[in-house]
Amino acid sequence: MAIRYAVIGTNWITDSWIAAAEKTAKWQLHAVYSRTKEQAEKFASKYACSNLYTSLDDLAGDRELHVIYIASPNNLHYDQAKQMLEAKKHVVLEKPATSTSAELDDLFRIAKEQGVYLIEAYRHIQEANYKLLRKIVVEEKRLGPIYGASFSYCSYSSRYNNVLNGETPNIFSLDFSGGSLVDVGVYPVTFAVALFGRPKTQSYVPTICRTGVDGGGVGILQYDGFGVQINNSKSYQSSAPCEIYGEKGTLTINFTTDIDSLKLWSPHTKTTEELAGPCKRVEKPNVNMEEEAAEFARILQEKDTNALQSLETISRNVLHVTESMRRQAGILYPADK
Amino acid sequence: MAIRYAVIGTNWITDSWIAAAEKTAKWQLHAVYSRTKEQAEKFASKYACSNLYTSLDDLAGDRELHVIYIASPNNLHYDQAKQMLEAKKHVVLEKPATSTSAELDDLFRIAKEQGVYLIEAYRHIQEANYKLLRKIVVEEKRLGPIYGASFSYCSYSSRYNNVLNGETPNIFSLDFSGGSLVDVGVYPVTFAVALFGRPKTQSYVPTICRTGVDGGGVGILQYDGFGVQINNSKSYQSSAPCEIYGEKGTLTINFTTDIDSLKLWSPHTKTTEELAGPCKRVEKPNVNMEEEAAEFARILQEKDTNALQSLETISRNVLHVTESMRRQAGILYPADK
Repeated sequence: MAIRYAVIGTNWITDSWIAAAEKTAKWQLHAVYSRTKEQAEKFASKYACSNLYTSLDDLAGDRELHVIYIASPNNLHYDQAKQMLEAKKHVVLEKPATSTSAELDDLFRIAKEQGVYLIEAYRHIQEANYKLLRKIVVEEKRLGPIYGASFSYCSYSSRYNNVLNGETPNIFSLDFSGGSLVDVGVYPVTFAVALFGRPKTQSYVPTICRTGVDGGGVGILQYDGFGVQINNSKSYQSSAPCEIYGEKGTLTINFTTDIDSLKLWSPHTKTTEELAGPCKRVEKPNVNMEEEAAEFARILQEKDTNALQSLETISRNVLHVTESMRRQAGILYPADK
Repeated sequence: MAIRYAVIGTNWITDSWIAAAEKTAKWQLHAVYSRTKEQAEKFASKYACSNLYTSLDDLAGDRELHVIYIASPNNLHYDQAKQMLEAKKHVVLEKPATSTSAELDDLFRIAKEQGVYLIEAYRHIQEANYKLLRKIVVEEKRLGPIYGASFSYCSYSSRYNNVLNGETPNIFSLDFSGGSLVDVGVYPVTFAVALFGRPKTQSYVPTICRTGVDGGGVGILQYDGFGVQINNSKSYQSSAPCEIYGEKGTLTINFTTDIDSLKLWSPHTKTTEELAGPCKRVEKPNVNMEEEAAEFARILQEKDTNALQSLETISRNVLHVTESMRRQAGILYPADK
């Protein structure tokens, strides 16, 4: 039986999730929520879905729903997820899960009390090529002892033009728990945390933009015996690849998401080997969330609490890291106060 | 009249300096020093040079010499340079100038007292394409406000094989003031310091190798409003380019030395422009120090104390940064004690 789900948030990311869920044939879009009926109708008209909600109470009360996918502005995640978990709905919550670790702890506690699952939607660590990378580095230890890594996600956002023009788009707003680190910096941070665990310490030097959030910045996660460079931005672009350095070689990865190249260079043979298979990605419509949607369905259907716990640990560690980096740098949200 | 100089140190770098000096036609190799007569003869036999010294006192007393080029092991730089400056010889000192800032301060003080010049041999910031880069970023401000930068020098050293085999080559020895940061990390640090000045703070997370020095590591230089990533290594390789991020674009540079590509990408036009001319580099014999040798000769002949002072400031700032990074990370030399 397909998993019946509703969506909160009517941005492009929700369209992407729906397209990916559909491709897996494991999910069935059952309802759409939006604050206004007009917006709900407009969004739902693209899909065979006639259950429209403008009340979160009514949505939470829909007995036919198993899962709520939430992709609203960051600052609304906590209250919305809390309400849905308390109504015993599983929740797939877009990253960044919440504004603070305290909020995330609370959501995981409620989920456990209610006997439902809370999953943060980190798509990139569900990719087949990411899993291959993890196998090479962590399980097979083909790089030998790790000497360092360099992970980045720096992509100029068209909305940064609005910032330069004096506007404050949600994702560049302190009130909406925005900024580059929590929006795209989480990709390299998750990458590090999923490979190496929670760092001992972390530091962050942001470049603060007109609206008070970080337009981008550089940081270091300190592990036992090595450091991981983090570079993230929505206000500048980088074409540098990601790299993991080890005694037995350097692994060069095209990017922290949508991996389609894993090149392993050996200092001993001076040769480079390509290890990645083709990336599961279709540009238009954007269905690079398919592996994620399939895995989350599997976890729900098989009640795979080990996988669930492992994702929970990653989510907690990532938020611990980004919250610490953000606060050190003086980037404070209303939820921090 | 050609500048008569002697060399201390008979490694490949001295051959490289001699080849570069010869190409400029401004320098004349007058004497070779080595601890043993055999080594001095062997080295000098490649050149038309018959003045061989095995005594530093005798070398210092040679009245025909204008300049001493010193490329001995790092830990010997201070004493040797001091003796030559006190004998009123100009000194060109290979990087890293000294083990500590206190030693460098002392050398600059002596040089001034004696009325001679002390120049640290940072060849990469004398390259024509580096000077073009500096013009683009600092003078013309074509990137607009700076948002960050990422500079690296990570190249697997064949001598790291010796380290893995249980040996301690000089450059990996604490006693010889070695390690990756002072040997190759100085290239990205000098790059940053020459472009942006002395950072407000600096941090370093090294990976320590068997011999107690850093085989490599990552750091951040914090400037007003942005951070500069530093990645350096002699124990792992990186193929990532260097980048400077600004409001008006990203400048991608092939490497911190031997620059032959400066690509400027604009977020507004989404186009990339190549700005670099051909790199002045001949692989064999290695004469990528020609621009440096020509500039140092010019400074000496024209008594260009402005240029001299500017290089002194860079040398002081670089050593201040690397010494702070190194000590924070617990990498201590005999000279630190």
